[in-house]
Amino acid sequence: MKRRDIEILSGFVEPQRASWGESVLDLHSKDQSHHGPHRPELVIWPLYVHEVSRILAYCNEHEIPVTAWGSGSSLEGNPVPVMGGVVLNFTQMNRILTLRANDFQVDVEPGLIYQDLNERLRPLGLFFPPDPGARATIGGMIGNNASGTRTVKYGSTKDYVLRLKVVLANGEVISIGSRASKSSSGYDLLHLFVGSEGTLGIIVEATLKLVGMPPDSSAMLASFREIRSAGEAVFGIMRAGLEPAALEVLSTECVELIKKETGLQIESGNLLFVEFLGPGKSYLWEVTSLCEDILRENGAVYLEKGIGRDKRDQIFRARHQLGEMIIRNHPNRGFLTTDVAVPISHFPELLVYARELTAGVNFPAYVFSHAGNGNIHVVLMGKKEDREEWAKIGMVNDSIVKKALEVEGTSTGEHGVGIGKSKFMELEHKSSLPWMKRVKELFDPKGILNPKKIFL
Amino acid sequence: MKRRDIEILSGFVEPQRASWGESVLDLHSKDQSHHGPHRPELVIWPLYVHEVSRILAYCNEHEIPVTAWGSGSSLEGNPVPVMGGVVLNFTQMNRILTLRANDFQVDVEPGLIYQDLNERLRPLGLFFPPDPGARATIGGMIGNNASGTRTVKYGSTKDYVLRLKVVLANGEVISIGSRASKSSSGYDLLHLFVGSEGTLGIIVEATLKLVGMPPDSSAMLASFREIRSAGEAVFGIMRAGLEPAALEVLSTECVELIKKETGLQIESGNLLFVEFLGPGKSYLWEVTSLCEDILRENGAVYLEKGIGRDKRDQIFRARHQLGEMIIRNHPNRGFLTTDVAVPISHFPELLVYARELTAGVNFPAYVFSHAGNGNIHVVLMGKKEDREEWAKIGMVNDSIVKKALEVEGTSTGEHGVGIGKSKFMELEHKSSLPWMKRVKELFDPKGILNPKKIFL
Repeated sequence: MKRRDIEILSGFVEPQRASWGESVLDLHSKDQSHHGPHRPELVIWPLYVHEVSRILAYCNEHEIPVTAWGSGSSLEGNPVPVMGGVVLNFTQMNRILTLRANDFQVDVEPGLIYQDLNERLRPLGLFFPPDPGARATIGGMIGNNASGTRTVKYGSTKDYVLRLKVVLANGEVISIGSRASKSSSGYDLLHLFVGSEGTLGIIVEATLKLVGMPPDSSAMLASFREIRSAGEAVFGIMRAGLEPAALEVLSTECVELIKKETGLQIESGNLLFVEFLGPGKSYLWEVTSLCEDILRENGAVYLEKGIGRDKRDQIFRARHQLGEMIIRNHPNRGFLTTDVAVPISHFPELLVYARELTAGVNFPAYVFSHAGNGNIHVVLMGKKEDREEWAKIGMVNDSIVKKALEVEGTSTGEHGVGIGKSKFMELEHKSSLPWMKRVKELFDPKGILNPKKIFL
Repeated sequence: MKRRDIEILSGFVEPQRASWGESVLDLHSKDQSHHGPHRPELVIWPLYVHEVSRILAYCNEHEIPVTAWGSGSSLEGNPVPVMGGVVLNFTQMNRILTLRANDFQVDVEPGLIYQDLNERLRPLGLFFPPDPGARATIGGMIGNNASGTRTVKYGSTKDYVLRLKVVLANGEVISIGSRASKSSSGYDLLHLFVGSEGTLGIIVEATLKLVGMPPDSSAMLASFREIRSAGEAVFGIMRAGLEPAALEVLSTECVELIKKETGLQIESGNLLFVEFLGPGKSYLWEVTSLCEDILRENGAVYLEKGIGRDKRDQIFRARHQLGEMIIRNHPNRGFLTTDVAVPISHFPELLVYARELTAGVNFPAYVFSHAGNGNIHVVLMGKKEDREEWAKIGMVNDSIVKKALEVEGTSTGEHGVGIGKSKFMELEHKSSLPWMKRVKELFDPKGILNPKKIFL
């Protein structure tokens, strides 16, 4: 990128919304993952669709890489500008454009943080269900098809996108989808952009589907001696069709860490947290009774029912902060987190496999899971600069991914491909991978959008 | 298509599975819509993936059109082979390959009829929710992204497809997706094929997601003097987040026809049929009480609650057979059915618009609706060969589509684009339509797959 390109591109916006200062470039050189930093050459904070369009048209003509940036909270290097160029930071383009409570719909800009959206929706009794935990932007969530604790009942981000405005590599602005709740009209380009990590186009506006907040909830905790039993209880609950709104496994080491860090009064052991949301007390009573039977049949040694709102919120908060707690507790170590998802019948076996694989290693490892979706995270902590240890960590990650693919699961349940998972794309997608590449070439023939991601 | 092509292609399968007999060609010249017949030149009943692959490779080389065929029950001319060539009739390739009850998943061949699948699943307490009504095949349902009475709660076919095996135009066989319940891995090609009406590739195998059948249900009927009131009650029920499992509007003329044809004991007027499915009696009691309040507030003049299983089944059957009843009652007329869907806040207005538009015409018209999805059907009956009347019918359809698009709805909620809706694609998709065409050219550069569909 030439000096002149930087001058021209930064001239497309007000002066305070473009920067090539060292500290700014550093701040946009890495996300929250273990992947090494790469600095962009220019950061621009767009406010309007026409700015994004103009920037992309210029960059496409001059073959300058462009990478979209939300909160930088991703865990697979997804927005790291590995080829330099321009980073578009969307955090100022964050308005709620039109709230249509009557249609359970909202039009938003990509930089809006989903918790801020939910804050605004709460008085209306509505919410946007996907919840990756970090203060993620809607644009980042769409780019990654983010999900989280609520996904077992409510689905992923892809299930909540009705319409998108996208700026393509050549600067062209297209609108995709409609506000109808269902449609059989034309090709589904919408879902092609969801989860494409900014490699096919840049999302500048989204119409999201919202959900009414069920008035009542009921939460319970169960403790198991063996992680296998917790896994089998998860399978039992899903098999019975109970539709929990959260179903989270925390292995012993996670539970001990949470107790130490938060002082939360919870049982030790491998914990299963279950929450149900529903229209009334009687429904919740029915479903939690059924759930209790399943938990006991699978060997729960301790069971806490009817957990109140306060404690439930503390548990959720602790679960969402678990990643940070782990990092804080190992100041001289970096981390890699696995993110496989498998069919639910294979969940107990994968959980045990992850447990056994990490039992013998001499670095810290934490196993936890959005269990209802068969989505397993293992956080592996390696000493910085210890190449041998990192090689071992890489091997553990590879083994877990390969095992997940063997049982027809996926290499990434929610973190996306980014840098770390591209090496598994051929194994996972086989014959359809070349067609993904051709789609990329169709929409971005010069390869300027978030280059070197998804594909090796 | 040359005589030699027919000989070679029919030689790819056993002799009894290829035919160019007049009656066979006639049977594959039209679906259930008003669109005129076009005969193929050859019909083949494939049984194996490799046969489909070989046929497509040959047809692609020789630029022979290929159109996939399920039950022929579509309503927009979707599988009519307007350019002749080969029709692949999938009704013999209809096996359940692997039933994985523990994962709530099943692998099926495309010719399987969805009611037959549900019959097999019933003893396991599982079902495949999309229900277009006719004896549709799974392949046809995926091709059309079919939906129906259950969609208001359970979504469309697209929400139940986890993995596809597809034969591309060049004969290449690709597999897309995984068996994980969620994934952020690579581009979503899966949803590109769902709803593409056999124009991008031909589906030869699908892994479907299944749902546990809730043990209890409760149904109610309400009658309204004005169709607007029925529409407003629908909006009220959806706005309250009650999550009905069916929410169907039948206008006066449909109700009278059903009573005459079936002898069913139901109230006259504009009827709203509501059903809830749930985990227990107490939940159902709560939700139906809330629903009753909304129905009364919106002016229900008659209300029947706690409808038993038998009567509920009769009502469902009558709803599903309504199209046939209408046709049977007007032996000298053909029909055109509209299929728009709009955001739910615009539903009452669209319903009234359709009513008023058809009140003054001098041909029979029937208004009914999968109301919870804002999906409105108007069946318009025209005298065969009466070109003036058909011109008027076309204008009514056009007006309803344009009105739906004005309020950011869709020209087709569930019937697909086929022949009849292609003229609205530009108005509906605007800037994204050229990209749909480019995707078509990417996957089918010679345009052999179901040509002249979706695009004008």
